[in-house]
Amino acid sequence: MEKEKKNLTPISKLGRYGLSEYLSSSFPLPSETLILGPGDDAAAFTADEEVTLISSDLLLEGTHFNLVYTPLTHLGYKSVIRGISDIYAMGGIPRHLMVNIGIGSRFAAEHIDEIYAGITKACRKYGCDIAGGDLSSSVNGLIISITATGSVRKDRIIRRSGALNNDILCVTGDLGAAYMGLQLLERECHIFESGKGQQPQLTGHEYIIGRELKPEIPVSTLNSLTEESIPISSMTDISDGLAPSLLSLCKASKKGCRLFYDKIPVDTETASMAEEFNMDPVTGVFGGGDDFEFLFTVPVSEYEALSRIKGISMIGHITPDDGIYKLVLPDQQEIDITSRGWGE
Amino acid sequence: MEKEKKNLTPISKLGRYGLSEYLSSSFPLPSETLILGPGDDAAAFTADEEVTLISSDLLLEGTHFNLVYTPLTHLGYKSVIRGISDIYAMGGIPRHLMVNIGIGSRFAAEHIDEIYAGITKACRKYGCDIAGGDLSSSVNGLIISITATGSVRKDRIIRRSGALNNDILCVTGDLGAAYMGLQLLERECHIFESGKGQQPQLTGHEYIIGRELKPEIPVSTLNSLTEESIPISSMTDISDGLAPSLLSLCKASKKGCRLFYDKIPVDTETASMAEEFNMDPVTGVFGGGDDFEFLFTVPVSEYEALSRIKGISMIGHITPDDGIYKLVLPDQQEIDITSRGWGE
Repeated sequence: MEKEKKNLTPISKLGRYGLSEYLSSSFPLPSETLILGPGDDAAAFTADEEVTLISSDLLLEGTHFNLVYTPLTHLGYKSVIRGISDIYAMGGIPRHLMVNIGIGSRFAAEHIDEIYAGITKACRKYGCDIAGGDLSSSVNGLIISITATGSVRKDRIIRRSGALNNDILCVTGDLGAAYMGLQLLERECHIFESGKGQQPQLTGHEYIIGRELKPEIPVSTLNSLTEESIPISSMTDISDGLAPSLLSLCKASKKGCRLFYDKIPVDTETASMAEEFNMDPVTGVFGGGDDFEFLFTVPVSEYEALSRIKGISMIGHITPDDGIYKLVLPDQQEIDITSRGWGE
Repeated sequence: MEKEKKNLTPISKLGRYGLSEYLSSSFPLPSETLILGPGDDAAAFTADEEVTLISSDLLLEGTHFNLVYTPLTHLGYKSVIRGISDIYAMGGIPRHLMVNIGIGSRFAAEHIDEIYAGITKACRKYGCDIAGGDLSSSVNGLIISITATGSVRKDRIIRRSGALNNDILCVTGDLGAAYMGLQLLERECHIFESGKGQQPQLTGHEYIIGRELKPEIPVSTLNSLTEESIPISSMTDISDGLAPSLLSLCKASKKGCRLFYDKIPVDTETASMAEEFNMDPVTGVFGGGDDFEFLFTVPVSEYEALSRIKGISMIGHITPDDGIYKLVLPDQQEIDITSRGWGE
């Protein structure tokens, strides 16, 4: 980024409102429910006869992303994924996004373009639009705040709190890949920054790196569940690792759970990278973030219907033991699952 | 803050989900339209037959606030004011807030309590509730993201773009006070930090300091306009100074304007502090922020009805000259109004 400064437009050259206008012109796809988009004090939309869902996330430089290896376009894309993941986790469809960016003078207007290019691309893919937002001057790193709204029929909201005894615990996709991708990127970043001139070794690890840098929502899997009319009793997304998602779902439902180590879906690339780091891949599954898969429960009676759907793993079941969360290891030993600490 | 660390709870001692739960228990006043509040992936609400408004703001340490003289409770309160000001500016009523906080390890859980105490107080005063939000670890200063939703009947949305030729330009309250309060706080902060042991001299300046640290929305004035059935053709809030608000309203309406220096409402405390700083008070009116008053236009036919409403100043009028924004000085000389630059 530092090398390409020659033809860039300093942010300070654009008036604040000029910049908002400049961005507004490239906002994609206003949808029918958006009555008023960017440019006024607030956006306005109707939700027809449905309930409006809303979720808000902060992405902070140094905490959620490292610009050394995160292209700004990917960062924009991932910000949208983070926002809409929560909407899908409620059984909803994403509709409108509010995007606020705090950005410092080390960036140029073209860098904002790159962030928005990623945001726009994700909006097109997932059928949502940008309803508004603003830019602020930041003296403390790049900050992206994403607020996503969505809609869902009131009787179709899927809460975290609906899990019942013996329900099957399921996850979409595979887990822990983004975490191993992040470990690899961090390692190569440190080697590169140590100044020995060694280029990053990323070949052969495209899947785990892609999972970290350009995640997607498993929409087709979620749609299959709807098409097969499988009743989902509870659901949450897995954006911060399986352990906090699992514990929050169980706590909200006042239940316990038993998970089987062998049933946890881990990609071969994830497993081999974990081996290279001399780690158990489950470390990244439980404590790592950014998988953007979904954890949900369905009644046992749905076992056969579930088995027909691709991209779903049944990893355990709900127990009546509120507060007791067990992982059954391959040798049948049972250990406690605990939530990853915060800010540690 | 540094002195009171003895009985505080380090944020790292609370698990991430523990902290969210801890906060949820103190969220105030869930309203009838809130179907699902904090604790799930997203909040859910209905807007009855009205349109849902949404607005999102970032408050960044170092850009929007200085913790040396800003009590955390006031910061929380002001965050809400900043969010709901945009909702009122559309003719709406604020309903639900999403609050995301990025906070570093130099803070304790009790400090978050203080922020939330201010947020809660403002929610109670303005009749809105907290629909959700989250906490993130920040390595780069304190960050508050506020998303406010509100409701308004579709035919009652007040846009920026509705100003017509000859409409009277009005503002609520008085302007520039928060800016002068900020100048005073910054000056006293520098003197205090220079280590000469001199205590801040703030007596006699309570009004301007209050305007900066604990702003309010002039709801009763806005209500009077509604009660008197005065048709507002366009409106925006004045949260970043009069100049950008004025220019954005005129640009959206494709009009020009003529303002009268003598008509701009400036409190005596603001004027005397400006004199002390050897500044024209209008500097703070045009370029200063955080007044949280409203700029709006009404047809000339409403002149008499407007005159009966307290707390409103008629400061000029709309002209057909798109792009020409004039300030008429006391000596009848006319000068151009320009928007304050961004990030300068």
